[in-house]
Amino acid sequence: MYQARIHITLKPTVNDPQGVTVLSSLHRLGFNSAGDVRVGKFLLVNIDATDRAKAEVAVTEMCQKLLANPVIEDFTFDLEEISASKSAP
Amino acid sequence: MYQARIHITLKPTVNDPQGVTVLSSLHRLGFNSAGDVRVGKFLLVNIDATDRAKAEVAVTEMCQKLLANPVIEDFTFDLEEISASKSAP
Repeated sequence: MYQARIHITLKPTVNDPQGVTVLSSLHRLGFNSAGDVRVGKFLLVNIDATDRAKAEVAVTEMCQKLLANPVIEDFTFDLEEISASKSAP
Repeated sequence: MYQARIHITLKPTVNDPQGVTVLSSLHRLGFNSAGDVRVGKFLLVNIDATDRAKAEVAVTEMCQKLLANPVIEDFTFDLEEISASKSAP
């Protein structure tokens, strides 16, 4: 049993209006040290696989087919082995 | 200059309908190895601070005041020193 920690971020060249909004809110609250802000998604997915290679293949496919939009988003993930009873997070 | 990598997740006791929906979509696509799914946010924020301690204080306050909802969400972050010219991500 593995837990995948998946990061999905907009590609660096893609405009991030949500990040721009967060940044302007931060400045309005007085956080003038804040510079560029990018907003992405973070998913924890438990994978019932017998070995790490199979889990990696499954998570890559999940990201490509559902979780990320490959046109505008990049994804990265790491896998942590967990005991079967532990639920995410 | 620091880059904060901020993870905002629902507290473990809080129901995650978005995660439930993602899980059922994964199962519908044939990913039967997927178990529990939790969905959170991931933010990259550049912080213009002279030292790490000041950056940490600023990011903690940002999370408490704007980025996370402390009633239902937890946040964690780590700081990476970056050159002033590098923009997030």
